[in-house]
Amino acid sequence: MKYPTGVKKSIHKYNSYGNRGMGLENDLSTTNEFYRLNDIAIIYKKPTPITISKVDYPSRLEAVIKEGYFRTPSTTDYNGIYKGKYIDFEAKEVASKTAFPLYNIHDHQIKHLENIYRHGGIGFIIVRFTTLNKTFLLTIECLLNFLNNSKRKSIPLEYFEKNGYIIKDRYNPRVDYLEIINKLYFDGGENEK
Amino acid sequence: MKYPTGVKKSIHKYNSYGNRGMGLENDLSTTNEFYRLNDIAIIYKKPTPITISKVDYPSRLEAVIKEGYFRTPSTTDYNGIYKGKYIDFEAKEVASKTAFPLYNIHDHQIKHLENIYRHGGIGFIIVRFTTLNKTFLLTIECLLNFLNNSKRKSIPLEYFEKNGYIIKDRYNPRVDYLEIINKLYFDGGENEK
Repeated sequence: MKYPTGVKKSIHKYNSYGNRGMGLENDLSTTNEFYRLNDIAIIYKKPTPITISKVDYPSRLEAVIKEGYFRTPSTTDYNGIYKGKYIDFEAKEVASKTAFPLYNIHDHQIKHLENIYRHGGIGFIIVRFTTLNKTFLLTIECLLNFLNNSKRKSIPLEYFEKNGYIIKDRYNPRVDYLEIINKLYFDGGENEK
Repeated sequence: MKYPTGVKKSIHKYNSYGNRGMGLENDLSTTNEFYRLNDIAIIYKKPTPITISKVDYPSRLEAVIKEGYFRTPSTTDYNGIYKGKYIDFEAKEVASKTAFPLYNIHDHQIKHLENIYRHGGIGFIIVRFTTLNKTFLLTIECLLNFLNNSKRKSIPLEYFEKNGYIIKDRYNPRVDYLEIINKLYFDGGENEK
């Protein structure tokens, strides 16, 4: 999301308690744009849901929101289509070097990904360990497997290393997660970009 | 979208120049909820995109948006998955009794639906003629066909009647558009609800 100038301080504070992940978010934004421009996939980030409580109308054609609140998203942040398949995922950054705390993902988002999987779509999470500069893709199948077999409140890094897939850091596309999706769910050889 | 109390006047003005279609929007909201609750499909409306220019932080855990603007959506309003297929559509209400003015749909939204179609998804528009109380589904294939063969700035009602599909007004689900999608793109007989 691009903020206009004049909100630097606000953004700083905003980031500090929940909206971490702007680095990964920006990388995914350019990656999805690359996919679209090269006609590989049509995947977008959904807008941040906001409850509006006050709107001003300085002119007939302009509406200015004067009071609003961030809402908890109903679903994941990203969805779209790749090779005819429905794609759905959530992306998170964590500073920890050892584990991904599960409070970063809402229960209903996991439930949503599970529903997508049951309905024949491809669901996953992308987690970046910022301190280690490692970005993983973990399928919803693997995530559910962990949740069903563990009472831990965080997923250890080792679980990602063993069951997830490293997304290599590249120039363009920055985070080529579809390379992994292609190998996992499609014939990795045919229709290759 | 649910607005809290205290914005009645604003909403009224807001509706008056662009956000028509709350009736259809509400009907689609309950319809999609019905689909989800009955595990028929996972389809959501995307949040309205907003550019935030001022945020206040009355407390560490609360952010209040103090200035924001409505942005033109990059894509369509609705997407999700049905029987493993990616679904994408835009919904509009018009007061006209004779035609659907094309300025109601942005060029990039039509381009988006065309892209979805090329990538193997199912794209369409839902148009309600409020005065006639008639709601149509028109596939992107038919919409493109019209645009490629006509210089008109609106789609006549007859085109919808001939090439579109009437969505029957029911109690629940209110606007059962998947009944039509099912007949058009799947074997209408198997896997029927």
